[in-house]
Amino acid sequence: MTTSADSSAGPTADPRATVGRYWTAADLRDWDTFAATLADEVVYDLPQTRERIRGKEPYLAFNREYPGDWRVRVERIVADRDGRQVAVRTLFTVDGQELHAVHFLTFDAQGRIDGITDFWPEPYEPPAGREHLVERY
Amino acid sequence: MTTSADSSAGPTADPRATVGRYWTAADLRDWDTFAATLADEVVYDLPQTRERIRGKEPYLAFNREYPGDWRVRVERIVADRDGRQVAVRTLFTVDGQELHAVHFLTFDAQGRIDGITDFWPEPYEPPAGREHLVERY
Repeated sequence: MTTSADSSAGPTADPRATVGRYWTAADLRDWDTFAATLADEVVYDLPQTRERIRGKEPYLAFNREYPGDWRVRVERIVADRDGRQVAVRTLFTVDGQELHAVHFLTFDAQGRIDGITDFWPEPYEPPAGREHLVERY
Repeated sequence: MTTSADSSAGPTADPRATVGRYWTAADLRDWDTFAATLADEVVYDLPQTRERIRGKEPYLAFNREYPGDWRVRVERIVADRDGRQVAVRTLFTVDGQELHAVHFLTFDAQGRIDGITDFWPEPYEPPAGREHLVERY
């Protein structure tokens, strides 16, 4: 049974479930299922590089072409009560290194993702002067 | 009328309003109002540096002592339906430079912030090879 290419986010879609499908499909490189979670007019934003991608096809190409042996799992989902905004924390593993990411998603009236803003915060060394207040883990 | 030091987040506190007070108070260095939004056992996490601060007093000291001429404004709040988790995007201005930040907050039964996880994603140059898909802004 292969319904993923035809499946729709659906008018009563739960954004939390849609976000789960989005990330599971990305992790599996299942681009048909991934595409089904997206609105045609989806806009992808990367504030750190000031890059923007407009439309489902360019955004699918961006993901299909993304280099590296990466895996992703969802750490936390915060979904607002009206089902139109979700914030997600993920943990990527890229060539054996773990990397946090944060994603803000918006949804259209049909429950499809129409806006994605990604943040990629990298590890850094803490500045000196606060050792008396913090522990390291 | 100075009630801020005695004010409580309150058992019916709206997490969205509490988060608004938290950031406005931080921007104004109004540490009494800031403290009133926090649970005594608040835990602050910085996954990028693997630093952790346990307790309201050390966390207040961390903020009071934080160097630099910084201002902050809230860009977006995503609050979950049960009032226990919020994700926030902020824009900091530090010595004239703008910096995005992302914060995940949790709340205790009294509506006080008992968990804060901060991410500080810095600007970077995009890798080559995706110019055909993106625009810059």
